[in-house]
Amino acid sequence: MKISDIEKGLNLAEIGDEMHRLIADLYPICRSITGNGVRETLAMLKTRIPLEVHEVPSGTRVFDWTVPKEWNITDAYIKNDEGERIVDFRKSNLHVVSYSVPVKARLRLNELKEHVFTLPEHPDWIPYRTSYYKENWGFCLSHSQWLGLKDGEYDVCIDSRFDEGHLSYGEYYLKGERPEEVLLSCHVCHPSLSNDNLSGIALVAFIAKYLSQLSLRYSYRFLFIPGTIGSITWLSLNEAHALRIKHGLVVAGVGDPGKSTYKKSRRGDAEIDKAAIRALRDSGSDYEIQEFSPYGYDERQFCSPGFNLPVGAFMRTPHGRYPEYHTSADNPSFVQPQSLADSFAKCLSVLNILENNRTYQNQNPKCEPQLGKRGLYRTIGGSKDVKLNELAMLWVLNLSDGNHTLLDIADRSGLEFGLIKDASDILLERGLLREDPG
Amino acid sequence: MKISDIEKGLNLAEIGDEMHRLIADLYPICRSITGNGVRETLAMLKTRIPLEVHEVPSGTRVFDWTVPKEWNITDAYIKNDEGERIVDFRKSNLHVVSYSVPVKARLRLNELKEHVFTLPEHPDWIPYRTSYYKENWGFCLSHSQWLGLKDGEYDVCIDSRFDEGHLSYGEYYLKGERPEEVLLSCHVCHPSLSNDNLSGIALVAFIAKYLSQLSLRYSYRFLFIPGTIGSITWLSLNEAHALRIKHGLVVAGVGDPGKSTYKKSRRGDAEIDKAAIRALRDSGSDYEIQEFSPYGYDERQFCSPGFNLPVGAFMRTPHGRYPEYHTSADNPSFVQPQSLADSFAKCLSVLNILENNRTYQNQNPKCEPQLGKRGLYRTIGGSKDVKLNELAMLWVLNLSDGNHTLLDIADRSGLEFGLIKDASDILLERGLLREDPG
Amino acid sequence: MKISDIEKGLNLAEIGDEMHRLIADLYPICRSITGNGVRETLAMLKTRIPLEVHEVPSGTRVFDWTVPKEWNITDAYIKNDEGERIVDFRKSNLHVVSYSVPVKARLRLNELKEHVFTLPEHPDWIPYRTSYYKENWGFCLSHSQWLGLKDGEYDVCIDSRFDEGHLSYGEYYLKGERPEEVLLSCHVCHPSLSNDNLSGIALVAFIAKYLSQLSLRYSYRFLFIPGTIGSITWLSLNEAHALRIKHGLVVAGVGDPGKSTYKKSRRGDAEIDKAAIRALRDSGSDYEIQEFSPYGYDERQFCSPGFNLPVGAFMRTPHGRYPEYHTSADNPSFVQPQSLADSFAKCLSVLNILENNRTYQNQNPKCEPQLGKRGLYRTIGGSKDVKLNELAMLWVLNLSDGNHTLLDIADRSGLEFGLIKDASDILLERGLLREDPG
Repeated sequence: MKISDIEKGLNLAEIGDEMHRLIADLYPICRSITGNGVRETLAMLKTRIPLEVHEVPSGTRVFDWTVPKEWNITDAYIKNDEGERIVDFRKSNLHVVSYSVPVKARLRLNELKEHVFTLPEHPDWIPYRTSYYKENWGFCLSHSQWLGLKDGEYDVCIDSRFDEGHLSYGEYYLKGERPEEVLLSCHVCHPSLSNDNLSGIALVAFIAKYLSQLSLRYSYRFLFIPGTIGSITWLSLNEAHALRIKHGLVVAGVGDPGKSTYKKSRRGDAEIDKAAIRALRDSGSDYEIQEFSPYGYDERQFCSPGFNLPVGAFMRTPHGRYPEYHTSADNPSFVQPQSLADSFAKCLSVLNILENNRTYQNQNPKCEPQLGKRGLYRTIGGSKDVKLNELAMLWVLNLSDGNHTLLDIADRSGLEFGLIKDASDILLERGLLREDPG
Repeated sequence: MKISDIEKGLNLAEIGDEMHRLIADLYPICRSITGNGVRETLAMLKTRIPLEVHEVPSGTRVFDWTVPKEWNITDAYIKNDEGERIVDFRKSNLHVVSYSVPVKARLRLNELKEHVFTLPEHPDWIPYRTSYYKENWGFCLSHSQWLGLKDGEYDVCIDSRFDEGHLSYGEYYLKGERPEEVLLSCHVCHPSLSNDNLSGIALVAFIAKYLSQLSLRYSYRFLFIPGTIGSITWLSLNEAHALRIKHGLVVAGVGDPGKSTYKKSRRGDAEIDKAAIRALRDSGSDYEIQEFSPYGYDERQFCSPGFNLPVGAFMRTPHGRYPEYHTSADNPSFVQPQSLADSFAKCLSVLNILENNRTYQNQNPKCEPQLGKRGLYRTIGGSKDVKLNELAMLWVLNLSDGNHTLLDIADRSGLEFGLIKDASDILLERGLLREDPG
Repeated sequence: MKISDIEKGLNLAEIGDEMHRLIADLYPICRSITGNGVRETLAMLKTRIPLEVHEVPSGTRVFDWTVPKEWNITDAYIKNDEGERIVDFRKSNLHVVSYSVPVKARLRLNELKEHVFTLPEHPDWIPYRTSYYKENWGFCLSHSQWLGLKDGEYDVCIDSRFDEGHLSYGEYYLKGERPEEVLLSCHVCHPSLSNDNLSGIALVAFIAKYLSQLSLRYSYRFLFIPGTIGSITWLSLNEAHALRIKHGLVVAGVGDPGKSTYKKSRRGDAEIDKAAIRALRDSGSDYEIQEFSPYGYDERQFCSPGFNLPVGAFMRTPHGRYPEYHTSADNPSFVQPQSLADSFAKCLSVLNILENNRTYQNQNPKCEPQLGKRGLYRTIGGSKDVKLNELAMLWVLNLSDGNHTLLDIADRSGLEFGLIKDASDILLERGLLREDPG
């Protein structure tokens, strides 16, 4: 069975609900770029797909970077004079700036202020902040809570530790017919944030699970990695291997109610770019195409000039363009099962195009072959309704000169990829096409 | 005399009337892809231009196709119980599905229904139908006549025959200065249809007649062929020769009142494409440019990937976009003398551009030559009216570096081709240009 | 000090006033394509910049042209019956058609009419006319004065002379680090016209003066030449040298109140084209880009096909598109100090882009370098405000693969050139970039 064989029979409502359930399960875990939160997350994914978990020691040089110490946190709070935990890590892991150094101190409100982050424009939301590469500590509070704090002294505690440990990431390799790979990568380094991080994890995990049951032309590599340092680490450890990546998608933010967005690879006209644009266009629903920019998720690393891999980004509303982004409002209720299912279906449709985007040689290139004698043509001529299938066959025959892929033919004809693909299947079966040896 | 010498003196009103007369004369003949109807048509054309008529035996293999048996029909009718011919081939040859097998039978109305074609949306028109490559028979009726038929039995007769015979086509070769050819092709396989088929025949015949009196740079080949099988046959018999075709137009549907349409060749940027677009733009009247698609007339074959000839299609309203298409309403009164004349003039204008689209070398490429001392420049400077002729001369001089044809110069300057051509003539005469040996 | 070091500290109001003063000083001189008016003009410029004045003898062959005789005029008038000078060269040198042959005659009004030019649509303005290359003479009058002339006889005198003399032009060469040159050229052949001719002279002179104090990457060549014959003469005498011109601007009409206009070089995508378009875009004020045409100022000669130099034209309202053009209304009050200063600043900004448009190699091309450890990155992550500087650094790093100039990076990123340039400076300083050896 191939992708195209299962595409139409999918129960998308069920898939969306299951993806949402996975997100809700992963939500409470306090992830960061290293530490037990990532390990716990990968362990939960391992129950669904045969993930290999890699542990890279702190201090490992990865290009210009160094794998940082492992950070773990057990507790954190701010207590008032009465000893009440007015800010409590156990209620929301967003309260602590990620990678905060340990602290235990008694501070006056104006001293504490230096270490507090709020969102005045959304007074009820807790912001999400990190300080990975500079020693620091801090708390994130809703602005209204902050405004309610009385002058006085506060007991502040962050029970975190930095150890020579590891950076953990998950990898699943699915062998297909050919050694060339399709990469699907998502980041796993955010604590309780749903659309950012968890929706991508869910989509990549579900795609992996579905593809593992199918017969595939390409091999697939699924990465569950901490953002930036994770992709840098993977590329550093797999430098020669990276050349096998023929197409790739960084998946992030695929559960919000916005429309699908595809951000092009640095190349701008790679096959993945054409396939993703075509899949979104053929979907019939609204979408957005973004040009590449070196700002965003791990496509920054995959598309750095020394690699320049054909990797785009598959999203819904781009990061930073929805107010819930990087706040406590990006919780499971912000993420919609139907958006997740829609992203799943569209991602599958991109992969289906890649799997089927072949180049053919018309075996009858001089004039049209006689479709009628092969039963491929309407028998009473002159009817006004030109069947789309016939038109698709004529386009495939006309442009199958070894220089046009099926995607190229879909683009030039303006017909849907599926129609072009079906036409090429029939023509191939009748011996009118042969795959171009390339 | 060259095309440009006669272009302005043409009596277009007279030409349009004459073309329309030819169409009216050819209208009653029952043409099909083979048979005596085509022969009669070619015989009538031969009185005007020295056409060579080719006869290709049935059964000849032409690429993936086989020349079919020759089809001729003498009579056909449907008689009612009273013996009246309620449908009579002698009244309109559209009544019989082209290539119908012979039949003589008595059928009930519901049996007859299987073999009857009507146009419910145009109840007074008879549709045109064919069944070339599948054995079948049928009648075409106006929908209102069909609705009037009472239940009962009908005598049905089609007195047709299939014989080992020939496929006939007409060819006229007009030798010019150079062996490279311009192809003008039209189809001759439709019975009583005027815009479809007859208007193209008239235009190609009249262009041939006019060109035969002129001194030409290119050689010209005029083809009067049955659609599809005719072009496939010609290409099969002239495979090596086809490489000489440097520019080509399939001419069809050039008499309706709609605006002129040019459909690009598969190449999309061939010289014929640029010339046709430029001629239509310079004409000042509205026009439409269509991208190539492998659906239409014989450009399908000329532009098949094994040939990929620079052949576009020259039309007015594209086939299928006017309701009269392939119905009895496409009769001589649908075709307008002024539309025919306008198509004639525009086609001539395309050919004039091809004939004159040369590439020159400025003989004075370093700085401008002094036009004033050659009497080519206004003598009192500073006037605000820059004469267009001067501007055209400056453009021709500036871009005549061997890399720009006159068409390129017209495109970049935004000036009319005629203006650019006139300027190049003056500059050539004064020795400021020399033709690029290319 | 480089251009970028002085750009922000310029007192543009003062510069505009000074330029306007120079224009007012040069205004009364009767310039033509040869003669003492040009010499006087160059002498005045020599007090500001170390101009070399070249004298090319009459009769010198320069490509297809010949340096004409030198023309000088001392007086001219039309006297009425009462002996009054009703038209007086001493009041406006525009009254005499430039290059008029000497004349002393008594003519009736209808005879005089043959030699009189007026502007009926602007009855109070005197037109400007020339007759360089055809022997002739004439007077230019305001239309209202002409209408007031009574029938009768008039004494007409033009006290001009043609001598074997010289064509004069000024040249200033400013040596930079590299032998490749930037050309700035203006015409000096118009009598009392301010925007046409004097504004360009002022701009080129001021740019030359400012650049002479700076440290420059390119060498610069400033030409003050009579239009057409001057550039032809210079190119003829410096034919081999012309290849050193890597970028060039013809400067003309830069003091009127209209928006800035850049007319592209014949190449259309030369670096000067991109730099000028980028400078105008980054300026934030409205501007216009024109495609090349072989009609205009001396770019006609620099861009003739035998040279095809990358020379564009830097202007405000294009010639002929403002009614004051080539009339007495193009006087010093038509030219605005703030327009002159704005043109100065924008021209400097074009040159600044050329000076700084380098191509770099990212020294850390595999994944991003860690900006944070170099103090180049915000330390608390997650803030919504992505600093433009960071974005500029990321763009420069991502595209510095040896194939993109800084201009290319500005274009692809949509960021201002200055931002991209500053980012590249920081990265270069930190060793993250190295200049591409090219």
